[in-house]
Amino acid sequence: MAERFLRRAGAVEIVRKLTAKTVLERGLVAEGDRILVAVSGGKDSTVLAWALAALGPALKCGCKLAALHISTDFCACCKKSALEQKLAEWQIPFTDLFVPVVGRLKPGKKMNCYWCSTQRRTELLKYAVENGYNKIALGHHLDDIIETFFMNLCGKGIISTMPVSLCYHKYPVTLIRPLALLEEAQIISCAGELDILKTACTCPYGIHSKRRDMRGKIAAFTPSGAVKRRIAAALEC
Amino acid sequence: MAERFLRRAGAVEIVRKLTAKTVLERGLVAEGDRILVAVSGGKDSTVLAWALAALGPALKCGCKLAALHISTDFCACCKKSALEQKLAEWQIPFTDLFVPVVGRLKPGKKMNCYWCSTQRRTELLKYAVENGYNKIALGHHLDDIIETFFMNLCGKGIISTMPVSLCYHKYPVTLIRPLALLEEAQIISCAGELDILKTACTCPYGIHSKRRDMRGKIAAFTPSGAVKRRIAAALEC
Repeated sequence: MAERFLRRAGAVEIVRKLTAKTVLERGLVAEGDRILVAVSGGKDSTVLAWALAALGPALKCGCKLAALHISTDFCACCKKSALEQKLAEWQIPFTDLFVPVVGRLKPGKKMNCYWCSTQRRTELLKYAVENGYNKIALGHHLDDIIETFFMNLCGKGIISTMPVSLCYHKYPVTLIRPLALLEEAQIISCAGELDILKTACTCPYGIHSKRRDMRGKIAAFTPSGAVKRRIAAALEC
Repeated sequence: MAERFLRRAGAVEIVRKLTAKTVLERGLVAEGDRILVAVSGGKDSTVLAWALAALGPALKCGCKLAALHISTDFCACCKKSALEQKLAEWQIPFTDLFVPVVGRLKPGKKMNCYWCSTQRRTELLKYAVENGYNKIALGHHLDDIIETFFMNLCGKGIISTMPVSLCYHKYPVTLIRPLALLEEAQIISCAGELDILKTACTCPYGIHSKRRDMRGKIAAFTPSGAVKRRIAAALEC
């Protein structure tokens, strides 16, 4: 997509276009798909839900969209009713599932982001399979993809990142990341234009995570979205 | 190699061990090789010449070592006699070749690092082939390899860096980089211990190059040599 368009268009239009580009070019959605959007209550997944709903008629593939929110015993999204209201406005059925993440910890073990995300991912997959969804849409964006790449490279010594599309062998489900071409800043602007920013919920644990530390360092390398998209293209994620 | 050794040993010993490790594990030197070390007069290639000479008897492969320095019409290494003296001390035959890099520029074209290095690389290869050398040893180190990776990734959108060993199709010559596991800081310390730091020559053009800009940014990601070696291993360079 022309960089000129990205500089001039409004955020809602940018999100719509780049989501459509990713979905179409990467073949993320097919005829009759039943797509479950994992909505945390945060800006990214809420914008994703909106973008997929907005894209629906354009895709002309009769796919169905629903949203699943996982509440936990340490972070029960305080703004859930606002989320539910927005999803209803966009005609996306909403389900709230409670997972006792802390309650499942073995004695002596402490809560951490890895444990929580593993628990939530397992429940998400289980719910999708049990309820006949063949696609799970996640709200990860370009900055998440770049951060994961650098964390894997520096921490584990491997060249790997989140793929735009991941087909599970164990489950009849494919993970898709339709926001893969969008920078976080573009999503924040879009969330502002959609008036969902003030009701977005952020996990209190995430603030001091390793991922946040990495974010500032990466900014020095990636002064523009063009550089980030170049890196993502090199990774063929 | 144990990180504990790297913390405790003197720089000369570290350079000797890590050069030996690279040469042996990557099969950089074979029976009867005629190795031409490209010596710019800088710390890196001078330390490389010393390390290969010091390694010679341990390799027991009867290979021959010589050094080639390329003088140009814009940077005629002012400390060449000191370099020549050191090489003689280490029993490495020395040749000085003049290449009119600026004189070869087409009208209207400006000097730049890329042009200069292309000219010097061509002459280096030509000299090696004409004088029966089958290996050319270059003084690039771990930081150069990491910098090149990041420059290629962010600038060109490709995952690529300097290889430890490169076999040319066009010439009967293999490029080798025996300092690939060494950080620049370790080479500087070694150059200090060998008393070659004050006579090392640095190209005046290099100071403001893109590579230098990248260096500071990379430091934030790579707080230790272990992280850098992990990245290099991921690249399988």
